[in-house]
Amino acid sequence: MKTELLVTGDEILKGDITDTNSKYISAQLLEKGIKTSRISIAGDDESAISAILEEISSRADIAIVTGGLGPTSDDVTALSASMASGSDLEEKPEAVDMIVSSLKKIGAIINPSNLKQALLPAASECIQNTAGIAPGFRMQINQCTFFFLPGVPDEMKKMLDTEVIPAVCELKGVNGKFLEHRITLHGIAEASANEILSDFRDIFPSVTLGFRAISPGVIIKISIEEKNINDEAVINSALLWITEKFGSRVVSTSGKSLEETVGNLLASKKMTVSVAESCTGGLIGHLLTSVSGSSDYFLLSAVTYANSAKISVLGVSPETLEKYGAVHEYTALEMAEGVRRISGSDLGLSVTGIAGPSGGTADKPVGTVCIGISGASGTMADTFFIPGFDRAVTKRRFAFQALDILRKGIIGNL
Amino acid sequence: MKTELLVTGDEILKGDITDTNSKYISAQLLEKGIKTSRISIAGDDESAISAILEEISSRADIAIVTGGLGPTSDDVTALSASMASGSDLEEKPEAVDMIVSSLKKIGAIINPSNLKQALLPAASECIQNTAGIAPGFRMQINQCTFFFLPGVPDEMKKMLDTEVIPAVCELKGVNGKFLEHRITLHGIAEASANEILSDFRDIFPSVTLGFRAISPGVIIKISIEEKNINDEAVINSALLWITEKFGSRVVSTSGKSLEETVGNLLASKKMTVSVAESCTGGLIGHLLTSVSGSSDYFLLSAVTYANSAKISVLGVSPETLEKYGAVHEYTALEMAEGVRRISGSDLGLSVTGIAGPSGGTADKPVGTVCIGISGASGTMADTFFIPGFDRAVTKRRFAFQALDILRKGIIGNL
Repeated sequence: MKTELLVTGDEILKGDITDTNSKYISAQLLEKGIKTSRISIAGDDESAISAILEEISSRADIAIVTGGLGPTSDDVTALSASMASGSDLEEKPEAVDMIVSSLKKIGAIINPSNLKQALLPAASECIQNTAGIAPGFRMQINQCTFFFLPGVPDEMKKMLDTEVIPAVCELKGVNGKFLEHRITLHGIAEASANEILSDFRDIFPSVTLGFRAISPGVIIKISIEEKNINDEAVINSALLWITEKFGSRVVSTSGKSLEETVGNLLASKKMTVSVAESCTGGLIGHLLTSVSGSSDYFLLSAVTYANSAKISVLGVSPETLEKYGAVHEYTALEMAEGVRRISGSDLGLSVTGIAGPSGGTADKPVGTVCIGISGASGTMADTFFIPGFDRAVTKRRFAFQALDILRKGIIGNL
Repeated sequence: MKTELLVTGDEILKGDITDTNSKYISAQLLEKGIKTSRISIAGDDESAISAILEEISSRADIAIVTGGLGPTSDDVTALSASMASGSDLEEKPEAVDMIVSSLKKIGAIINPSNLKQALLPAASECIQNTAGIAPGFRMQINQCTFFFLPGVPDEMKKMLDTEVIPAVCELKGVNGKFLEHRITLHGIAEASANEILSDFRDIFPSVTLGFRAISPGVIIKISIEEKNINDEAVINSALLWITEKFGSRVVSTSGKSLEETVGNLLASKKMTVSVAESCTGGLIGHLLTSVSGSSDYFLLSAVTYANSAKISVLGVSPETLEKYGAVHEYTALEMAEGVRRISGSDLGLSVTGIAGPSGGTADKPVGTVCIGISGASGTMADTFFIPGFDRAVTKRRFAFQALDILRKGIIGNL
């Protein structure tokens, strides 16, 4: 039986935004061994959507629909589902409860357009939205079970992972008990990681291998459907095989992000850190403080964009800046030492580089970055050339490279 | 009559790559006033593709298909078109010529798998590929004219722009153009914005109104197909009507982001800014420095997460911290003044709050934030309660609220 996706939204049909939801959903389904047979994208038009729902209901046994559950008049998915199923819209008390409690969480009160989000087909069951307002819903149309989710990616993902995927596995009779490992890598691209693992499928034929490019880095996922007594031994030896191939590029064997891994390392070693940023503009502080509990180890990030701030705040010597420039290992050394000194942290991390699009020279092209790290054992700095496709990607590459150096510094007891 | 797109490729259905072709094509079509009514995505399977081609041929008058024109056995688009149309595949001499000349351009010679790319339906006309090997083709199936293009984005785009869009415009008899405005709002949710504009569609029936939730904020889009001499006056009065409704919550009437708007304001007034962050962890610096050219006005962000850093770096008085706590307007005032003093910037912005999930109290629950701004005319601070669904959303709400206060401070000549 077939599994289909329907993505709704005029903004996609008009080319305003790229649909990324269908990629996420089809990848999650495939991880459970479920192939997506077709994806449809339709505008915010109830007759078009209801016609497609009917079509899908005659071809597929499972369908996941995203978008059109918002409070405005161009959100017509519930109405379309009602038209396709013949089940009238009604104000669902459990949906009202969900909406009221979500609004309370963000200190807002309910207004009439929010109540529209509780108008769902009578025959549907609500799905709780823990990351937003709009409840989702599930209902049968002809031979097909439909799951309707919001289009906002964060909301959709949470609901998909916690509610929909388990329900789909149950409906499909997929035992859904997969043994899996996720290996986070830094400093390697998806294509190269794939090359390095080219023998994997021959050596471990029963293990499913998947790649997810993160920006920057890769998460490798290996999984096996748990059927035999030795499946756990097989996947563990596959994990070992992979970690040996990648060595120090392995950030985490439990799929943790680099910033989370660094945070956990700092917390477990009871060390504190401060950061002197320049071209990364605060992104390193932002990444480190995205991890809950970061106030235990993160003391300060000084985003000294201007040279004058490097001098006045961090105590970088004007001579160093004049002689070598802002993007130089000597400057990075003084920045790392300076931020460690003024904050009193155990470790000081510094980044100074050229994120572009302008500011590059023949000697120091866009993508050049100097990273310094200072600890009780001393201070060191290094230069990297890691340009991205644009300013935003380059900033991220710089920030992640710095965090990876911090990770290695903590592990190495700098 | 309808215009549809079909994107083919197993790699998209598996969630390995994101389809970006359909976004490009639908945006190019819309520039000519042609709305895409539906997008379908199918795998590399000839019976599935031919069935969808037949479907589309009964609904649309124009369809653009991408992918599956390569030399390998999983490239089945020409075969599918042949099945759907009943027109047999034949080796087209003009296609062979195109392939030979393309290969010559890159110094390669023809091999048998390239010749497969010349096997096209007898009833089709070839379309030259100037950026790659595979020729495209055009053919009628039932009531619909199909354009088949390669899936490689660079090749597809060139062929679309030079060959397909002009042909589609001719078939549609259009040279249509849309007039549109995008209005960025801060400090209001999509549902409330919709409430406020509830009369819009009655007052401006010819103008299309759309909403896009950004996190946090809303972008309102109004558009009108330019047909009459007064259409421009109509959409301009719609823009005026909307901006009057939202007043100071209008960040931009050209769809610019808050950080870009603030950056443009600073640049045009030749003012500099520095930021003292706490719970936002560097996000404000990161947002401000995402705008190219920000080095002209952004001097410093001091992410003083620890109280000790607030004291040592910003010069906040230990008494203030002890008496009122870190999250207090008095602390925000001293942070804003301190960062302005140490950086020498025209404006100083400060943020101190509780992003959660822990750290909240009855007096100062998670979501409480104090924002200070300091300029030549003085310093002021205010407290807001703007919790998000989680730490990441709360940080964003705090950062955007601070940027909006900065925006108003610049406009008000603080």
